[in-house]
This record gives sequence, C-alpha cells and structure tokens, in this order.
Amino acid sequence: MSAPERVRVAVVGATGYTGAELLRLLLGHPRVEVTALCAHSKLTPRASAVLPSLTGLLDAPVEPFDADVVARKADVAFCALPHGASIECVRALRERGVTVLDLSADFRLRDPKVYAEWYGATHAAPGLLDEAVYGLPELHREALRGAKLVAVPGCYPTASALPMLPLLARGIARSDDLVVHALSGVSGAGRTPASNTHLPECAEGVRSYKLAGTHRHTPEIEQTLSHVAGSSVMITFSPTLAPMTRGILSTVYARPAREDVSVDEMVREARAYFEGSPSVAVLDAGALPDTLWVRGSNRAHIAYFFDRRAKRIVAQCAIDNLVKGASGQAIQCMNLACGFDEGAGLRAPAMFP
Amino acid sequence: MSAPERVRVAVVGATGYTGAELLRLLLGHPRVEVTALCAHSKLTPRASAVLPSLTGLLDAPVEPFDADVVARKADVAFCALPHGASIECVRALRERGVTVLDLSADFRLRDPKVYAEWYGATHAAPGLLDEAVYGLPELHREALRGAKLVAVPGCYPTASALPMLPLLARGIARSDDLVVHALSGVSGAGRTPASNTHLPECAEGVRSYKLAGTHRHTPEIEQTLSHVAGSSVMITFSPTLAPMTRGILSTVYARPAREDVSVDEMVREARAYFEGSPSVAVLDAGALPDTLWVRGSNRAHIAYFFDRRAKRIVAQCAIDNLVKGASGQAIQCMNLACGFDEGAGLRAPAMFP
Amino acid sequence: MSAPERVRVAVVGATGYTGAELLRLLLGHPRVEVTALCAHSKLTPRASAVLPSLTGLLDAPVEPFDADVVARKADVAFCALPHGASIECVRALRERGVTVLDLSADFRLRDPKVYAEWYGATHAAPGLLDEAVYGLPELHREALRGAKLVAVPGCYPTASALPMLPLLARGIARSDDLVVHALSGVSGAGRTPASNTHLPECAEGVRSYKLAGTHRHTPEIEQTLSHVAGSSVMITFSPTLAPMTRGILSTVYARPAREDVSVDEMVREARAYFEGSPSVAVLDAGALPDTLWVRGSNRAHIAYFFDRRAKRIVAQCAIDNLVKGASGQAIQCMNLACGFDEGAGLRAPAMFP
Amino acid sequence: MSAPERVRVAVVGATGYTGAELLRLLLGHPRVEVTALCAHSKLTPRASAVLPSLTGLLDAPVEPFDADVVARKADVAFCALPHGASIECVRALRERGVTVLDLSADFRLRDPKVYAEWYGATHAAPGLLDEAVYGLPELHREALRGAKLVAVPGCYPTASALPMLPLLARGIARSDDLVVHALSGVSGAGRTPASNTHLPECAEGVRSYKLAGTHRHTPEIEQTLSHVAGSSVMITFSPTLAPMTRGILSTVYARPAREDVSVDEMVREARAYFEGSPSVAVLDAGALPDTLWVRGSNRAHIAYFFDRRAKRIVAQCAIDNLVKGASGQAIQCMNLACGFDEGAGLRAPAMFP
Repeated sequence: MSAPERVRVAVVGATGYTGAELLRLLLGHPRVEVTALCAHSKLTPRASAVLPSLTGLLDAPVEPFDADVVARKADVAFCALPHGASIECVRALRERGVTVLDLSADFRLRDPKVYAEWYGATHAAPGLLDEAVYGLPELHREALRGAKLVAVPGCYPTASALPMLPLLARGIARSDDLVVHALSGVSGAGRTPASNTHLPECAEGVRSYKLAGTHRHTPEIEQTLSHVAGSSVMITFSPTLAPMTRGILSTVYARPAREDVSVDEMVREARAYFEGSPSVAVLDAGALPDTLWVRGSNRAHIAYFFDRRAKRIVAQCAIDNLVKGASGQAIQCMNLACGFDEGAGLRAPAMFP
Repeated sequence: MSAPERVRVAVVGATGYTGAELLRLLLGHPRVEVTALCAHSKLTPRASAVLPSLTGLLDAPVEPFDADVVARKADVAFCALPHGASIECVRALRERGVTVLDLSADFRLRDPKVYAEWYGATHAAPGLLDEAVYGLPELHREALRGAKLVAVPGCYPTASALPMLPLLARGIARSDDLVVHALSGVSGAGRTPASNTHLPECAEGVRSYKLAGTHRHTPEIEQTLSHVAGSSVMITFSPTLAPMTRGILSTVYARPAREDVSVDEMVREARAYFEGSPSVAVLDAGALPDTLWVRGSNRAHIAYFFDRRAKRIVAQCAIDNLVKGASGQAIQCMNLACGFDEGAGLRAPAMFP
Repeated sequence: MSAPERVRVAVVGATGYTGAELLRLLLGHPRVEVTALCAHSKLTPRASAVLPSLTGLLDAPVEPFDADVVARKADVAFCALPHGASIECVRALRERGVTVLDLSADFRLRDPKVYAEWYGATHAAPGLLDEAVYGLPELHREALRGAKLVAVPGCYPTASALPMLPLLARGIARSDDLVVHALSGVSGAGRTPASNTHLPECAEGVRSYKLAGTHRHTPEIEQTLSHVAGSSVMITFSPTLAPMTRGILSTVYARPAREDVSVDEMVREARAYFEGSPSVAVLDAGALPDTLWVRGSNRAHIAYFFDRRAKRIVAQCAIDNLVKGASGQAIQCMNLACGFDEGAGLRAPAMFP
Repeated sequence: MSAPERVRVAVVGATGYTGAELLRLLLGHPRVEVTALCAHSKLTPRASAVLPSLTGLLDAPVEPFDADVVARKADVAFCALPHGASIECVRALRERGVTVLDLSADFRLRDPKVYAEWYGATHAAPGLLDEAVYGLPELHREALRGAKLVAVPGCYPTASALPMLPLLARGIARSDDLVVHALSGVSGAGRTPASNTHLPECAEGVRSYKLAGTHRHTPEIEQTLSHVAGSSVMITFSPTLAPMTRGILSTVYARPAREDVSVDEMVREARAYFEGSPSVAVLDAGALPDTLWVRGSNRAHIAYFFDRRAKRIVAQCAIDNLVKGASGQAIQCMNLACGFDEGAGLRAPAMFP
C-alpha cells in the first residue's frame, strides 16, 4: 500500500488545549489539509474567535460534531474529547470508515474490566478495543502502520513508560519495586479554570494529587510496563503539579537486576533500543532532562542514573505534555497509520526560551 | 531576477536567544539550508551541547567567526551580535558579497551623529549606512526586495511603530504628543543572567527602566514615526519589564487629528494599510492584544481605542519580542531580500498555551 | 478621647483574597482581637478548612453574615465584599453602631450620580455617603481620626493618586493632560477562577482591559486628583494585567507646570508632603519602584522622572494591591479611626524574595 | 535561668536571601533588637540600598565582619554564610561568648570524616562540633534550651526528616527502603544569578540536579533518620528545582513495618509526636500539603498516604525553604536557646496568595 499524497483531517474537540495544539502542528504538516473543526461548546463561524492565535491563519468554523459531515469532509479524525464523551464519536466515525486518532483514555486499557474499575463506567464499545492500537510508536510501531483506530497514550504514561522500555526489555531493571514521581505543568488539567490552576493559587505552589494508587494513569502505565516486562507490574505513582504551563518530568525509581549495572550500559542499551525513533533522544551520561528543552516539540529526553550507595536506578524523561504527551504523539501515530514518514511535521526543535 | 531555489545560511551569534530562535525558525524554512554557526563563546563541536533543544536535530559545530569561511559556506548571514560587535562582522561579510541581516542596532539609525549620541561611540562603518535598509517590511517592503544589508529593527521599535504607521500616514493621529508605554518579557534582556532576571527577583516584580528619554530605542522609534509623519517626532518612551519570558505589549497614546475619529475608522484604515502584509492582524474593534496569542509566532496583533472623555487615541500592539521583534522579522526581511514569498517559513501560529 | 486598649474585630467576606489578607495582618496586630468571620459561601466550622494557611493558628468558624451577631461580637467590622453586596451590610452594621471599614467601591464616590453612571445602579444608601470618609490617610488623615465609616480606596486609585498628590498640591504638574498606565498582578481579579487568570493563559500573557475611559476606577482617581488640584480632572486610564500574583505599578504621565521642574525638586517636595506618613517612601532620584520590594507590606514606593526632551513628568508608584491597595490600608484607616498609632501592625517589611 | 527581657542580635551575611529573611522576621520579634549587620560584599551605609524592602524601616549600615565589634554589639549572632566561610566566623564569635545560630552546613554533620567526604575539606574547627546542637526543635528541643552554638538544618533535611520522625520513632515505617523526592523553589539556590535561575530558562523548566546520592544534604538527612531509627539509614535523594521562588515539597517513599498500617494511624501517631510543637501541623487524612499554604511562614504541613496496592507509605511535607527551612527555624532555635517562647515572632500565617 502506498501512502496517499495528502489526507483530509478533522479535529473533534478543536478548542481545548490538545485540540489547539493539534491545529498548530497540523497547519505545518506537509501531507495534511485541515478540513473540519468540531466542538461541543465555543462554536463559532471563525476559529480565531476562540483561538486568537489563528487570526489570519485559519478561519474555518467550529461546528457541532456530526459523524456524517466529518466522514464526508475527512479521511482522518483526531478526537480530543474527555474520556467517556469520546467513545460515541469514535464508534460513529469508525462505522463510516474514518481513521481515528483518539486522544482520550477510552481505548487505552486493553481490558474493559480494568477500564470499569478505574473509570467507574462500563465500557460502551468494548468491541472496538480489539481494533484499537495503543499509540506509543516506540513500542508498537509495526502495529500502528495502517492502523484504523489508535488510542493515543496519556501524558504521564508516555513520560513514565518510555525510559523504562529498554531497562525492562533488556533485563537491566527489576519490575517488582517501581516508584514513579512525575511533575506536570498545569496545562495538563485542561482549559477549564479552577482554583488549583488560578495563577495566584498555583504560581507559588507545588502539590501532588491522587497519590498512592488513585490516579487513572496508574493502570495505563502498569499495562505498558507489564507488556514489556512479561509479568504483572504494580507501581506507586505520584502525579504532582508544577507551576508552569507545559511539560512533564517523570522520575522512575527501580532496583537493578544485577549489581554491576552502570549508567554507560543503560545509555548504550537505550540508544540501541530507540535506534530509528525520531522522537527520542537518550542524553549523554550525566546530562539532566529538563522540560525547558522539549517545550513545544515532539521530543522525549531520557537519562539514566545509578545510586551506587542505595542500589537504585533513577530513570528520567522530559516531554511536553501537549506534544509528545498528546497532540504530537497523535500525529506521529497518524504518520504511521497513513504510511507517512514517522517524523513528518514533527521535526521542529523546542521553543527556547 | 528569479529567486534561488535554496539559500545557504550562516548564523553568527548562534547561541544567544535571537540566535537560537533563528535556528528554530530556519530549520523549518523550505528554502534554507543552515550551513554555518558562529559565536564568540560557547564554542562546541556540537550545537546541541549548548542548545539541548537541538539534540538529534542539528549537530553542526559552533565555531569562531571567520569571514572567509562564512563567505565560502553561506550566501546569507544573520548577525545576532551585540551592537558594536556587529559592525566589523557585517563589513567583512559585505566585502565578501554575503547578504547580511543584522539584528544589532548598528545600522538602524540613518544618521551616524544620532548613533554616536545614543550609543556613545563613533560609528565604525558609516559608509555602509547608505546600503542598509531598515527592515520593517510593512513600511519598507519595496526597498527590502533584493537588499544586501538589512538593519533588522529592535523589538520595542517594531511593536511601537507598527500600530502608528496607519494613523500617521493617514493623518488620523497627531504626531506632537506621543507617549509609548511598552512591556517586555525578560528574554529581551538576553541570555546573560543578572539580578533583574533572576527568577526570585523578577517573578513577582514589574519595574520600568531607562525612563524619560534615556532608552536607546527612543531615537529608533522616533526615526520611523518621523519618516511616516513627515516631520520630526519626539516621544516619551517607558520600557517596562514584565515577569514573563517572551512578548511585548506596546501602548501608544496619541491625540486625534480630528474630533470625530472613531475606532471603526482606525480599524478600517489600518486594515487597508496592512493589506497584503502576512504578519499583521488588525483585531476587531473591542478586542485586546495579548502577548499570549502571538508567542512563538511572527504575528503582530494590533488594536485601536478612543477615549472619548479625555480625547485620546490608545493604540496597542502585541508581538513576540524574539520573533516579530527579532529573528522572525529578520527572516521576513531575508525572504524579501532573496525574492522568496514574504511569509515563507513564518506561518506557524502562536504556541497556545 | 483616649484609644481603647484593644478592639474586637469582625471580618465580613473573610474567605476572599482581601479577607484572607485582613486576617493575616490582623492576627499580628497588637491592639486587635479577631472575634467573628463571615462569608456568603465557603461556610465552615473551621476557617483553616478554606484557608489552610491558618491551620493551627485560627480555628474560628466562618458563618453567614448576621448584623446582630456581628454587632454583639465586634466593635469594628471590615467589609470585604463585592460592590453592591456591601451596601446592605454596611448599613446594618452602622445602624448597630459598629465602626465599618468598607473595602468595596460602594462608598468611595462622593456623588451618587457618578456612582449610578459607572456602577449601573442607583446607590442604595446615599444617606451614608456623608458619613463616609475616603480612606486615603495621606490625604484625609484628620478626617479619618474617629471616623465611623471609611470607604477604603481601590488598589489602582491608591497607586495612581499617591504620587500625584504632592505634584498637584504644590503646583508642579498641570492637571489637564494626564495619562495613567497601571499594571496589576492577577490577585486583583479576586479568588474566582477565570480564563484570564488560568495559569496557562496568563503566565506568558500581558493584556490591558477596560481601556480608554471604561474602567470603574477612573472616576475614583479623578475624584481624588480633582480634590487636590482644585479643579475638575479627567484622565486616560489603562489598567493592564501582569502575570504575577501581587502588586501594582502605576505610571502617571503629566505635563510640568513650569519649564524648569527638576527631579530633585519633585523628590524634595514629595518628601515634605509625605512627612510623617508611615507607609510612603519617596525613593532617591534615579531609583525605580518595583512591586518586588513592597510585596506583602503596606508600603508605597514613589519615584519621579522628568523627560527633558519631550517635556513630560513621569511619576511612578509601586504598592501591593492586597495590602496598601486594600487590606493594609483598611487597617491603617482603622488605626486612625480607633486612635491607634497609624502604623500599628503594619510595619513589616516586604517579603523578599 | 530566667530569660532576658530582650536580646541584641547581629546578622552576619545580611544581604543574601536567608539574611534578608532573618531581618524581616527579627524586625517583628518582640524580644529582639537588631544591632549589627555584616556582609562580605554589598557593604553600604544604609541596608535599604541593597534591600529596598527595608526603606524607611531599617537604615543600619552593612559592615564587614569584625568579631570584636559583633561581640560588643550583640548577645546573639546569626551566621548566614556559605559553608566553609562560616567556620571561622563561628569560632571567633564563640571565643567571645556570643551565642551563635549558624545557618551553614558547617556544624550539622556530627562526624568530621563525613563532613570531609561530602564537603571536600577537612573540618577547620572539629572541636566545636561537640558544642553544636543540631537545630531541629521537633527532635532536639531539650538540647536546644540554653544552647550556645546551633547548627540550623538545611531546607531539604528539614522537610524530608520531619514527616519520617514519628513513623520511624514509632516503628510504623521500615528504615531500609527510603526514597526522597524533593522539589524546591529557586530561592534555595541563593541570590547569585545563574543560567538555571534566569527566568527565561527556568520559568517553564523543571529539572533535577545532583541525583543518585551526590547531593550534600543526603548525609544530613541520613544522620537524622539514623538517629531516630536507631540504625544506619541510607536513602536515595532526588533534589529537583521547581519554577517558583519559595517552598519545598518533600515526598518520602517508605515500606510499612506491618501490613495493616493505616493513614489514620499515621495521622494520629504523628499528631501525638508533634504535640506542643508550634511549627508543625499534621493535616487531616486526605488533605495534600502545598507550598502555597506555608509561604512566608514557619509552618510545616505534613500528610501521610498509604498505597495499598503497592504496599508503600507516601509521606509528604511542605515548608517555606527560607523560613522553616532556614531563617525561621534559626529563630525558633534562638527562642529555645534564649529561654523565650519557642514560637515567639513566628506565628504569622502564610502570605496567601
């Protein structure tokens, strides 16, 4: 199958942060034409009225979702909706043959029982779970080629799983004693204002939330790590809000599988593992990942440390939660699904400073 | 003259903020190949060592400036050096036939006496001033086509002059009673750390500096406004530091030339004036410019207000100081100088949020 | 009349920003006992449940407002309510003999017609306007001694009027050509989250609002300046949001009354004018006010500049909007009303950094 | 021994952040008179010239350190100097009988060999180590009464040890599997500007530093935890910079000593442990510590969680690094050393927002 020259793309949920970020990136994608914008609220004849950054650059209307209209106008749809709200849109679009990149959590967990347990609702379209491919290209690249439904990973799961893939796949780290401490910028909480994102109450505040096994990204991270480790993994996961707009810095603590593990070995093995991945950079030994250096880009910066005194591996990964943690990764998946170059439209370096 | 397919580009002063921003934008430019990076310090065999955002994306060395080398490797050079330091590089490059976009203040002021007065040094290459074109495309578009030496405007002058161009050109505002109050993000102060940019001492501080006719951008703004007004303009200019990284919001206070001026008229006239300018958007009446909506883009958002009680025009303009206020505008000038589409490589919307 | 040893104080509207700031300051006041907390929402048996900063320090309940209860428990009440909502509380408390410091706008404008014009509602208690003293101690110190109802000034009016008091009172500046450009931290918008205070949408954004004679603080500033100038003053006022929590930096542009005005003269006259004022510091010539240096304190830092080229005075004032711009000034007024030392409980320096 | 009515206090290192914070707090202390300010640089006849927050409030000179002068002017000295630089000042002051609160790391480690190993220098005054009391009042309250030399703990050690004291003392947590992930505001890096504290390079960046057993606070935390646990403790410690000015949020991961540990038990035991401690609040089960709520105060907010799935205790503590993590704790120690009420001058709630 040869790739099409260009695909027509719809963005459903165009006015939230991941929707806006999809538009920013898709407008610069060489193989994409944005043909439809949908949303539940903020409907407007001109997208720039709700996203002034688009003034003079994109003046399409934002319309209510209508599966028939989207299927007529677009070959590919990105669904950037809250979980639960996404399932019906996805089903309707798949029934009409549209390739779907779903940014919600609705198709990420393979087991509908686990979904029910963590999301508090029976999955409304379990039949689609078989079709859904988990969109972490560094792990499921081959399955993503030609995929028709992609469950784009969450931001925390991307940053938390990536650095552990080589360590678990190559048997460097043990999988039975894992702690993940992850910091996120507040854009991860979405575009709806709230007390904990109100500048006076968060500019000088760091605080964790949903500690000790209660955050919904926990089973998603465990699913990926279990897949790679070949055994059931259980983690302690601590999501923490940092007073900045974008970025995730995830730190994973693990026990080494052998006494003689070294940073050089981890760097070498990880570079081999990510060979050919356009979005991952394994930093030189000693360098420290920093959300500053990936902001606005689809890059993941990964580094490894070994605490010789306490015998613990410390693995870190920095990404932009809205790009490699959401919209950029969705486009990376689209590139694979459509037969494009995996890095097409995603090669811009971070915006510094 | 037909435009070349592609130009080879050098960035001199590649490791400062405007240099880094040039690289970010040039790497995505369809007609550009970056072939040389120079700097005075932070020399390194791999640019990513000093700009980790480039890891895996650009691994060229950063070398000391050598005019012969640059002239051999590049057709076009961007000089992103401090004023004073720039003159010699520019002269050497022009002697070797390289087209130069100079981001320093060295060739902006037409009159070497004014330069001497405000910059405290005799101009070292007054002979080049005749060749230099002031790189505000919205005012000097025709002169910029085919230009060999462009003096790229300062950030404050861009944001402060743009909204006044139509008002003065069309005789809507008087030119004899102008106050410019401009806010800048701290990246305008450059990459060298200092107390006033140390996060603990600026995150909760706003303060002006060089008030009351002492900032060097004053004569530059006056030169542009005088050119448009057709008479000598003198302004009160108040640069002010806002606790954010990027952005300039410039507010200009002016007296109306007639009693019956209206916001609708100003919007209409300004839209006519900027017709065909790819980087300027005149907002609808009532909308307020916000640096948030232009960050990372080469866009200028302009709006007009009229205080009927006090009989004053209030004109505002928001830009990203590092893009439309520096590196993006330099590329816009290069596009004109090289015969490319003026907006080539510059159409990305702002990064939101 | 001798001052009481101690007063019992109620805070009505205790859970908003000015309420919380009143509590912080009152808990450290040597002559005050906080005896009642009231609010419309966020009612709780323990104040620390809605203001965790008080955990272990103040565990009083937050109760609905009941004038009889407040009058029984307190000698003095601070009303930190939105305008409109305040009038009834104030009337009920005054009828019961309670001394009231009202932080709303309801009693600031002397003329109920002006109130109606700017606040869009007929004043519900015009009879109390005669009793109300405008709480700018630096201007109305004598009237505040023993006052029973104080209309505590707005934050912008405090920062904008203070630096002009000496210039207008001593005839140094003309009163007929005034522009006020004022920057405020976002706590000025209150505790209710909104898009423009949502960290991702304001941390890198500066924007003005209610420009060109539409902000309600305009007539309040004009009332004060007219009082001092002895003639009707009309200003252009530009409130602007800066991405920080606290602080106002107000810049006033004025024409000199004489050609030979000097900075030294302005500093000297202002120091004489503010002699004995515990909350005002006139900075040395050349020093620049900065919100950083007044944060958390009841201090106003004032400075003067003269643009010799353009013949304009530039006067600046930095305050903390929640302290000298609200709660601290209210306590300063209470001190005068109760016969205490004007600076009692208000001498803490700013929190730096 | 009865406490003196008032003590005369010197601050050595008055112009850095902890020095400035000492001055802010000491100026409001009921039993203190600040009589001498010393520094190595920023010498000035008026403290307000280098700390404008003191304008009009403290106009003492900042002078070079002279032990004889300090001993003549002061009964108590706070040394807020870098480690290494502190030892000589402390020795000279102790020889002259001055009570010293040392905020450096020089007297914190009991074992000079450990000091040599982590600080890279032989301890210059090991003889004073016996006299030095480690200034964590919640652990060493009795030893601090009447102490003549106090080694005030570091900010990370305070926030990291406090929540573990009850868990280890009461045998609730095991001491052999501890990970400490701690976030700090950038004021912890001091007043000297650097790239990693330059606003454009840290406002949107989180990054760890000195990971995996290389940060000097590691042995200090271990010393305290070992003391309480009664056995040698080794931790993995990850200091991380968050883009804010003040605050530390420390998260400690530990294994429970028994299977049936509960959050309620931990809260109950911790409240019993900290009974009578004026600076510690153990939050209700489920509440989350936030640096927002302790900023500017000498309060530590502590909370406990238990991950039932992964069988891990998560203990958190939020403090202000400059107050309970430095200057406030130093004053708390002084209060004990001088026989004052432990909370004197330290009862102000956090500044919110």
